[in-house]
This record gives sequence, C-alpha cells and structure tokens, in this order.
Amino acid sequence: MRLKLEGTGIATAGKPVLGITMGDPAGIGPEVAVKALVCGRVYDICRPVIFGDAGVIGKAVEIAGLGASVRCVSEVGQARFEHGTIDVVEAGNVDLETLEAGKVSAVAGKAAFETVRKVIEAALEGAVEGTVTGPINKEAINRAGFQFVGHTEIYAHFTGTSDYAMMLVEGDLRIVHVSTHVSLRHACELVKKERIVKVIELAAGACNKLGIESPRIGVAGLNPHAGDGGLFGFEEEREIGPAVEAVRAEGINVEGPVPADTLFAKAKGRWYDVVVAMYHDQGHIPLKLAGFKWDAGRDAWESVRGVNITLGLPIVRTSVDHGTAFDIAGKGVASAESMILAIEYACKMASAG
Amino acid sequence: MRLKLEGTGIATAGKPVLGITMGDPAGIGPEVAVKALVCGRVYDICRPVIFGDAGVIGKAVEIAGLGASVRCVSEVGQARFEHGTIDVVEAGNVDLETLEAGKVSAVAGKAAFETVRKVIEAALEGAVEGTVTGPINKEAINRAGFQFVGHTEIYAHFTGTSDYAMMLVEGDLRIVHVSTHVSLRHACELVKKERIVKVIELAAGACNKLGIESPRIGVAGLNPHAGDGGLFGFEEEREIGPAVEAVRAEGINVEGPVPADTLFAKAKGRWYDVVVAMYHDQGHIPLKLAGFKWDAGRDAWESVRGVNITLGLPIVRTSVDHGTAFDIAGKGVASAESMILAIEYACKMASAG
Repeated sequence: MRLKLEGTGIATAGKPVLGITMGDPAGIGPEVAVKALVCGRVYDICRPVIFGDAGVIGKAVEIAGLGASVRCVSEVGQARFEHGTIDVVEAGNVDLETLEAGKVSAVAGKAAFETVRKVIEAALEGAVEGTVTGPINKEAINRAGFQFVGHTEIYAHFTGTSDYAMMLVEGDLRIVHVSTHVSLRHACELVKKERIVKVIELAAGACNKLGIESPRIGVAGLNPHAGDGGLFGFEEEREIGPAVEAVRAEGINVEGPVPADTLFAKAKGRWYDVVVAMYHDQGHIPLKLAGFKWDAGRDAWESVRGVNITLGLPIVRTSVDHGTAFDIAGKGVASAESMILAIEYACKMASAG
Repeated sequence: MRLKLEGTGIATAGKPVLGITMGDPAGIGPEVAVKALVCGRVYDICRPVIFGDAGVIGKAVEIAGLGASVRCVSEVGQARFEHGTIDVVEAGNVDLETLEAGKVSAVAGKAAFETVRKVIEAALEGAVEGTVTGPINKEAINRAGFQFVGHTEIYAHFTGTSDYAMMLVEGDLRIVHVSTHVSLRHACELVKKERIVKVIELAAGACNKLGIESPRIGVAGLNPHAGDGGLFGFEEEREIGPAVEAVRAEGINVEGPVPADTLFAKAKGRWYDVVVAMYHDQGHIPLKLAGFKWDAGRDAWESVRGVNITLGLPIVRTSVDHGTAFDIAGKGVASAESMILAIEYACKMASAG
C-alpha cells in the first residue's frame, strides 16, 4: 500500500504511514506519544497517526504543556499528517472522568488492548506500513480478561506468527533474544539448535533492513565462560556450537558461542553488528546499562534510551523499551526519547519493506 | 604482624606488605606486575613484593622496556621495598630457555600454582598483609596435576574456607556473586536463602572495609522481571525475598529482589553501593561492560579495568579481572590498569584489618 512516487520530487508521499498506540491510558504512553509528535523531525521521516482515545490524547497534550491540536479520525485514510495537528484514530474507549493516572485498572487495560488489536489489523490491511507501541501494563490487560504476557505475544497471536524474536537496539548495540518471558530454568531448556538457527537468521535479516549488508554476528554462550569446554554446562557443545556451524554454512558471518561477559563489551565497541542472547536478562542487562542513566541527585532516570523491535512478524512493530512508569504518569515529566527512537526504527524497517 | 609505628612520622612503616604473584609465566602476569611496580604511587600506598621466578620477572622488565632492577630474596623479611628495585621472593621454578610465551604448559602451570600456594602461606603466617594475584591458566594448572577451577577455589582450599564469595569492583559498581563457576542450570539450584543471606552479609562487610559504613545493597532477582510475581519462576518468592527480609531484620539496608536489567543501571548511577548477583554472568556482564573498552580501530581492548576480590577468606586477596591474554603475551603491550587497581584494593582491605 506504500506510495512510491519516485522521481516526482514529492518526498512526503513516500514516507511510511505509522500507527502509534497510546499504550495504557493511565501510564506515560499518551504523553510520550504526543511529545514525540510535536517534534518536526518525526514528520520529516514518516506520516504518523495515533491509535487511541482522543480525550486521553487531548489530556496528554495539556499535561505536557504543548500547543498541538488533536484531530479525530475514524480511519487512517482520513488522517492528514500535518505537523502541529495530531491525528488520532479514535477508539473512544476511555472515560476521562473516572480514569486515574498511575493506577492499574481493567478499563485502562481493555482500552490499551483494543488499540493494539486495531493497529495490528490496520497493518495487516496495509493501512499503516509500520506500528509503534506505547507501554501497556500486563496486570491491567489480564484484569480486562486478555491473557497475554505482553505486546510481542499479542502481535504473534493476531498475526499467526510462531517464529519471532525480540530485538533491542541502543546505539551500536543490537541484541536479539532466543527467549524472553520465561523463568531462567525454562530459558535453559529453550536453548536448542533449531531455535538458535532461526534467531540468528532473524538477526541477520533485521540487520539487512537496518542497512547493514553483511552483519558480523556474535552468539553468546549460555554458561559462564561459554561452558569452558564442557566444564560448566553442555549447551554450548550440543546446541549453540552446531547452530553457529549450520548458519555459517549458509554464508552468514557468525562467531560463537562467545563468553557473554566480554561479548557485550566487544559489541558495544562495534566488533559485532548484532548479538544473539540466550535469555532475557543476558540481553537486557547490557542494553539497559548502555541506554539507561540514573540521576543520583534527583533519584530518577535521567535518560531511558532503547528500542524494542519484534522480528519475524509479517508487519513492522517497534516499541519503547520502558514501561508505563505509573509513578510519574500525569506529571508531564516523562521523556519521549525512547518513543522517538522507536518511530525512527519503525521508519527504517518499513522503508526496507 | 603489621607494623604500626604510630606517631613516629615514618609513614612507610605503616604501609601494608603485599605479596603479588606473577601468575602464569607464559601469560601477561609478570609484565603487568612489573609495570605496576614501576609506578611510584604503588610504593606510596604499600610495600610490594613479587612471588615468582626472578628470571621471568627480569625478562618481563626487559620486554616492557623498563629501567627497574630485580632483587632476589628467599623470604619476605629480606625485601627492602625500594621503588626502582623490584623485590622477588624467588621460586626459581621456570626454565627461561624452554618457556614459550603464549603457550599452555604443565611447567608454567606448576610454577604459577606454586607461587599462589606460597603467597597464601605467607599471608597465613602474617609475613604479608595482603595478596594480589596475576592471571593463571586453568588448563595449565590442571595439566600440572592440580584440579582447581581458579584462584578462588585454591585460596578456599588452602585456608579451609567454605563461605566465600567473588566480588568485582569497577568505579562505583560493586558486585558480589551468589555463585560463579558452575553451569547456569546448577546456578539456579544454588539460589538458596541461607547462601544469599551469607553473601549479603559478606557484601555489607566488604563495603565497610572499603569505607562505606551503611551500604545500600541491591539484591538481583534470578528470573526476568524478578519473576513478575511468580509468573516466571519461584526463586524470588521462596528464596531471595525471605533472605532479604532476614538480613533487613539484622539492620542491613537492603532492597530486593530487584529486576536485574534495571538494577545494574541504577547501581552504576550510585543508587546502590553494592549489588548481589545470583550467578556469574549476571554480575560479570555489567561489570565488564562498564570496565572494558574495545577499540574497533585496533581490534583490541583499549582498556581493561576491574578488580576481583575474594570475600570471606581469613586473608586479603584481590586480583586482576582479566586472563593470561596469551595472544599478546611477551609483546610488551599489556595494560597494568587492572593490576594497579587490584593493588589499591588490596591496600584498602588490608588496612581495614
């Protein structure tokens, strides 16, 4: 559905249409979305439209002290994508009178869930070329009766995807995970050759879309010292090593299993273009250490950078890599850094087709 | 055995005597030791003596292109601790003619092991007040017939210690580990309340010795999101939470279990004085990401900072947190940063008694 008016000089028409969800209306999602959309450079790279409740978005503009106006539309086709006026595909599913900022509720969970489902539908229909999600609260979603661990699982469900993986990006650090939201014991069970091969391939494909043609891929070991020759665990020899050999035979430039403690330091120094992590925290610890900065003077995060990209879906999905931050919701102090980065990455992925 | 000539004005006499092992003679250990000892500030804070082979140390001085001379002594009591002359408690256990830089060998392993055993004896006798170890090669040690995973285990064995823990320090990041050199599956089994209580206490005690009176301690969860209320694992509720409660009742300022991915970013921002990590890589990944810098231009480490301190021993032991680096051994290019830091920390720990 993407317009490609090549040679016309009308660059605007070629910019990808992005659907951005508001996230949980009681969290900082609406605020970071509107803060992102008042940045002119966002309109320089895409045609953004928010999926959410127009009342909530209007309130977020007010909380953030911004001058933007809000335009309600019933479908993406009616959006005008003009900087200064935020287009909202109206869900009309939040009662502002009863919504409490910073509180978990089934009503907010239902509203958040519905906009996610709607943006997925819009992407599958081709009405939007990429989707960007604001943070949701798992408990609120579950209270509303939807049994999902998070966005990734919702996207996988509604797109019928079984082979997907979570990628985190911050600066030169790109990390794709073999598993995410399972116990560490269960994560050890999921370290299997077939899955690792798939994840390495997804990582290579994602790098291609991000403009890295022949990425150098580092695959982490599961155990300390990557098992130290079998002394501390067998997964490196039985599963990870064979997976690396298999994809190397496909012509992919890959090293591993590499001891995880030095791997990420080398990746941060650009030795690797992308790292395959064996479990959630193995990838999340270095990513957040690189992207998050704590301000000891204010006892608060000074900077929260990083983007979450779901690989393997038939549609583009990126996300902020922070949560609903209920403690600061409604205060107008949330940083839109991660949301702007998520929009930038959605553009890159959508433009790569 | 430590001399305390208070009020005499002879500051030198009060500086702790440190025994520094050369490590594997085929690695960079001898080089980083001599490079550290040509720094005047090392003699400003301690009275250092190397435990090793005088021939190897002399060769290291030559390789590093230094002007220092080497003085052979048969015991610590004969050392003079004069800057410019490196005192070596002679082991005389290496044949320079046959030693090959950068090669694993039983002879080098035996020589390294013997100097470690000797420095432990010297510390137990009180001849040295702290010990600092250069890097050894596990395979070389094992080929020489000594079945140990590393220094920590050698120290525990020869001092008869059962409750010990590995602490890593780099800048404001201090991390103590519940387990280290075991498979990740086994590490999950070792997450037990009694052990965690012990490690938190060791962490608190170490902070006290480093001059932090009432440290704020962050205890990591084992599973993603610290188990997310039992959804991804049970160790937080059954083991880690109860351990935190138990030490809090002792008056220790402790938080946890905290999701590991944000915990280390907050610790780096000085929210926590020390972190208790549940397994090797959980602590090593953030520490090395903070302390190691990869130089993509040279395809080499630009900086390798960090100190390893063994807690719970009856004697002081610190160490470099890098390996033998056989690939650059004998070339004179190794950095002594980590060794100098290890010496500084040994001084602090020894001075605290």
